[in-house]
Amino acid sequence: MRYELYYWSGIQGRGEFIRLALEEAGADYVDVARGPGGEAEMMRLMQAEDIARPAFAPPFLKAGDLVIGQTANILFYLGAELGLAPRDEGGALWAHQLQLTLADFVDEIHDTHHPIASSLYYEDQRAEARRRTEDFRRARMPKYLGYFERVLARNAAAGHLIGNQLTYPDLSLFQIVTGLRYAFPQRMAALTPHYPRVIAVHDQVAQRPRIAAYLASPRRIPFNEHGIFRHYPELDGAD
Amino acid sequence: MRYELYYWSGIQGRGEFIRLALEEAGADYVDVARGPGGEAEMMRLMQAEDIARPAFAPPFLKAGDLVIGQTANILFYLGAELGLAPRDEGGALWAHQLQLTLADFVDEIHDTHHPIASSLYYEDQRAEARRRTEDFRRARMPKYLGYFERVLARNAAAGHLIGNQLTYPDLSLFQIVTGLRYAFPQRMAALTPHYPRVIAVHDQVAQRPRIAAYLASPRRIPFNEHGIFRHYPELDGAD
Repeated sequence: MRYELYYWSGIQGRGEFIRLALEEAGADYVDVARGPGGEAEMMRLMQAEDIARPAFAPPFLKAGDLVIGQTANILFYLGAELGLAPRDEGGALWAHQLQLTLADFVDEIHDTHHPIASSLYYEDQRAEARRRTEDFRRARMPKYLGYFERVLARNAAAGHLIGNQLTYPDLSLFQIVTGLRYAFPQRMAALTPHYPRVIAVHDQVAQRPRIAAYLASPRRIPFNEHGIFRHYPELDGAD
Repeated sequence: MRYELYYWSGIQGRGEFIRLALEEAGADYVDVARGPGGEAEMMRLMQAEDIARPAFAPPFLKAGDLVIGQTANILFYLGAELGLAPRDEGGALWAHQLQLTLADFVDEIHDTHHPIASSLYYEDQRAEARRRTEDFRRARMPKYLGYFERVLARNAAAGHLIGNQLTYPDLSLFQIVTGLRYAFPQRMAALTPHYPRVIAVHDQVAQRPRIAAYLASPRRIPFNEHGIFRHYPELDGAD
C-alpha cells in the first residue's frame, strides 16, 4: 500500500513522528504537501465537505479507504501495520501509553515559546515564554526524561523502551532528544549525563541504516523557528 | 471483571472521562483513591519498583493483569471492553481520533488558568492566565466547538458523534460542555446557540438513566477550583 501523509511542508513538527516510522519501515509513502499540489491539496482534503471523518488539524494519513488523524493515533495504526509495535494487546496499549506521554512532552515543548496563543508570534509573548521555559527547563524536562529513564531501567534489553526490538515510541524519543538538543543545547548538555538510557535509545535509532539515510537526505527538513523545537538563545540555560 | 480506577480523590479532572464510561456501562469498578487506602495507595502503585509499566501520572486503570495509563488509552481499551466504541478498525480509530482531539481541548482548558506552570498557584500566574484565556474564549472555543459541530453535521443520526449509538467520545463531549458551562458561564451562554448539535449530544447523555443517576449521586465530585474546569469570574466574559 502507498500511504499518503498530509502535513505542513516547511517544518518537521508533529508530522516528523510519522515520517520517522514510515522511513524506518521502508514504507511506500508520499508526503503530499511537499509535492506538486502543495499545502493547498492538504487543505482541500481537510476541509472537503464530502469527507465523513474530517481531521481537526494535520497530520493525517490516508491509507486505502481510511483517513486517520492525530499523531499518536496514526502511529498506533502504523505500529501494527509496519511491525513497529508489540503484537499482544497489553504491549500495544503500553506502546500507545508511552507515545501519549511523549505527545504530552511535545505539547509542553511547543508551549515554551507559545504560552499564550498559537496565533501570536513568539515575539508577542516573549516575557511569558521566558517564565514558562524556566519552569520547563528546571521541572518538566527532568520529570519527563526521568520517567523514560525509569521505564528503560525496567526493560532488560538496553536501547529499547519495550522488549528487545525497535518500536515507534523509540523513534519518537529519538526525535525529542534531537529536538531538545537543537532548542536547548546548554540545558541538554547539563542534563544528558543523568539519563544514559534515554541517550542510548537516541544513539541506537540514529545508527539504524534507514534512519541514518533519511537524516542525511533532503527529505529531512532542517530544524527551524517555525516548528515545535525552536532555538531562542534567551530561553536556554544550563539550569 | 472488577476494574480498579486510580485517580485523585478530590477532583473530577481527567479521571472523570473514565468514570463516565464505567458508569454508563454499569461496570463493576472501584475508585481506589476514594476508598480506605486513599491517594497513598495510588501513589504506592504508581511508584512501586516492581511495576514493569509505570504510569507517568494518574489516571490509570487496573484491569486484571493490565495496568493502563493515559486517559485516551484507557478509553480506547474500555470502549472495546464495554461496548462503547465501534467494532470495526476504522470506526475504532475514528472514535480514538475524536477522543484525542477532545483531550487537546481539555489541555487547553487547563492551561487557561495555568499558562506558566502547573506547580504554581493560579494566583501566581493571574496576568498570564487572563491573556491566555482571552485568546481561548475568542479563538479556541469556537474552533473546537465548531469542529465537533461539523463532525456531528456529517453524521446522519442526531445526538451522536459516531453512527447511531452512544460511544465514549459522546460522554467526553458531554463532560466538556458541562465543565465549560461551569467555568465560563457567560461565554458559553453566548456560544451555545451556534452549536445546537454539540448541545444535543450533551442533553442526550445527561438524560441517560445511568448517567443521570451517577450525576445525582455522591460519586460525582462537584466542580471546584482544583480541577481542570475552574470558575474564576475575572476569566469569563461574553466574548
